[in-house]
Amino acid sequence: MTKFSNRVTTLTGGGSDGWDLYRKSCDMIERGLPVVQLTLGEHDRKTDPAILEAMYRAALAGHTGYAAIAGTDALRDRIAARTERITGVTTGRNNVAVTSGGQAGLLAAHNIACDPGDTAIYIDPYYATYPGTIRAVGARAVAVEARAELGFQPKRTDLEAVGPARSLLINSPNNPTGVVYSQKTLEEIAGYVVDHDMWLISDEVYDTQVWDGVHLSPRQIPELQDRTLVVGSFSKSHAMTGSRIGWLIGSAAAIEHAINLSTHTTYGLPGFLQDAGTFALDQGPGLEAKISAPFRKRHAALCAIFTTRGIGVVPSTATMYLMLDVRPTGMSGDDFADQLLDDHLIAVMPGESFGRAAAGHVRVALTTDDAALESAAHKLADFYETHLRDAA
Amino acid sequence: MTKFSNRVTTLTGGGSDGWDLYRKSCDMIERGLPVVQLTLGEHDRKTDPAILEAMYRAALAGHTGYAAIAGTDALRDRIAARTERITGVTTGRNNVAVTSGGQAGLLAAHNIACDPGDTAIYIDPYYATYPGTIRAVGARAVAVEARAELGFQPKRTDLEAVGPARSLLINSPNNPTGVVYSQKTLEEIAGYVVDHDMWLISDEVYDTQVWDGVHLSPRQIPELQDRTLVVGSFSKSHAMTGSRIGWLIGSAAAIEHAINLSTHTTYGLPGFLQDAGTFALDQGPGLEAKISAPFRKRHAALCAIFTTRGIGVVPSTATMYLMLDVRPTGMSGDDFADQLLDDHLIAVMPGESFGRAAAGHVRVALTTDDAALESAAHKLADFYETHLRDAA
Repeated sequence: MTKFSNRVTTLTGGGSDGWDLYRKSCDMIERGLPVVQLTLGEHDRKTDPAILEAMYRAALAGHTGYAAIAGTDALRDRIAARTERITGVTTGRNNVAVTSGGQAGLLAAHNIACDPGDTAIYIDPYYATYPGTIRAVGARAVAVEARAELGFQPKRTDLEAVGPARSLLINSPNNPTGVVYSQKTLEEIAGYVVDHDMWLISDEVYDTQVWDGVHLSPRQIPELQDRTLVVGSFSKSHAMTGSRIGWLIGSAAAIEHAINLSTHTTYGLPGFLQDAGTFALDQGPGLEAKISAPFRKRHAALCAIFTTRGIGVVPSTATMYLMLDVRPTGMSGDDFADQLLDDHLIAVMPGESFGRAAAGHVRVALTTDDAALESAAHKLADFYETHLRDAA
Repeated sequence: MTKFSNRVTTLTGGGSDGWDLYRKSCDMIERGLPVVQLTLGEHDRKTDPAILEAMYRAALAGHTGYAAIAGTDALRDRIAARTERITGVTTGRNNVAVTSGGQAGLLAAHNIACDPGDTAIYIDPYYATYPGTIRAVGARAVAVEARAELGFQPKRTDLEAVGPARSLLINSPNNPTGVVYSQKTLEEIAGYVVDHDMWLISDEVYDTQVWDGVHLSPRQIPELQDRTLVVGSFSKSHAMTGSRIGWLIGSAAAIEHAINLSTHTTYGLPGFLQDAGTFALDQGPGLEAKISAPFRKRHAALCAIFTTRGIGVVPSTATMYLMLDVRPTGMSGDDFADQLLDDHLIAVMPGESFGRAAAGHVRVALTTDDAALESAAHKLADFYETHLRDAA
């Protein structure tokens, strides 16, 4: 067989990708079992029909040909305005490239920052595609653990231990932990990337899901502004996961490169889809608040249930997830999630799916209606108690 | 400023990209000038409203969440069936990965074939994104000329002169020349890539635009089947340029890699968009014939006009383009196109936009209504005659 590139044969790092439990739960659902699916970060509501209608109207009106590869002027202007509203940092059209979802933004950012062989750091626990995205650009993916005992805030000393690196990828508000990086953490990170003249890649796709305090973007720190590439998306903020519209924010020079990359990766996004995005942003922050509201409520309700029932909840102030510490049961996150699925038909993600730092934890996605979610929480707590007794 | 990767700073090769004339024509149109726009390969009809309605129905029905990253089963099955219908080569779902347009397919193919530093060949004249796509994966882009005096059919001796290479990218039916590679050419190419154990990347996005004879896919040659990666798209066949739906066809092993790449590049395509593609393919070859029919007619009509008027037309049997040899005027393709635009408000692409092999030519896109096109052809012929006299 003709030789495949090393890039593709090493892309997924080999072995299990940690998503076996997710696939098992899908198989069970397909077989007709009433599994409560709390694995994926996908809303239990669909995209707003008004947004879909805007897409259809734009398509019927003839926006079906090649659209501007950088993104339409209208959409770039609105993304810039939204960024400025949320962060207070002056942002213009030339700071914005529209991408095929946040994932394409992540890839573009690493393409801009790293050459083959360069070291690119990501923080563990991490979203599943991070290491593969770094490998896809030929860079060396190095995980730095944000430790559970430090509230999953990464520390500069751990970053320094890696040695020379070109980029650092962070994600706050964080998936899977729900943690928001503190001002102190961001300042440590700033010192680190500035001292080593590195790129900071900041995945901020959960910027509307902050339940206490405010979203902090590293671009707000002046010495980081031009060396930070922010990845954003309509997926979580507008319940548009399937629309695959995201963006990259950066210096005008970086965005020029991002546009050149788009020419060679996707040749831009459908114009009618971009018009739907423009319409969605024209609805303002009210729509975003409406879409995040159920998760705010569920986050508080489940925190209360788990805490009352004596389960260690990772202290968190954000996102559509809750992370539970199941180590007192003596079980790994993998075993806990697997047996919970078998015994109670409740699917949650093992912490091990997100790296080493979240081992012995499980992530609960708050993605079903309140009543079903609270019932599942109690069953999970019962299961936890049973195994706590076994461990004692 | 923090250092950009060498990848992005060298992506476009520096200097003019040859599309100055296109941009000038767009600027003139924006200023209100009645330019006849014959530059881009974009239909003068919009996407069929029935296809757009299918997209809207799928979205309203709730297909707005994450869709299968490989492509939906329904769409992959239909792309496989279409490939089998057109080429006669057995093709199944696991030979198909859906991509964000043909461009993402081109990129995926080179990602699969080439590591950084590998040599990847493309044929000159070429579509604008080819060299940048190769550079985007860190490979060395080497052009091999298909010479005008050989009817723009590439020759094995010219390929062998490059030395060791990992992949060869071909495009038949060809943009910009309209040439279909002969069986003999394909056999020479087969001998070359098999002897050197290389990948063949075959861009076949014009497979419905063949006016005489049949489309030949290198996958039809048994020893090429597993080493060929075919790039396809809805853009030209279904007048869906703006929908950005394409595909890659290859061995099951290659397609596994393509799917892993999609996870890390775009995380798949919108499900409602894929459903639109499924609907489009369910209309069968009749819709494809209807969409290509105007170009068949215009190709014949303009061939006749130009030949009668004594202009050298590159002998071609395919595509929505005609290539004219303007060397008898003593002008370069650049100068001819630029002056034609200034003097007669007719925009055609200089052959130089597509590399060196088509210098002294211009490409006419057959993308306006018949009457306007024939009138423009006569004006172009008048202009040619005037400058022929000047040259004499």
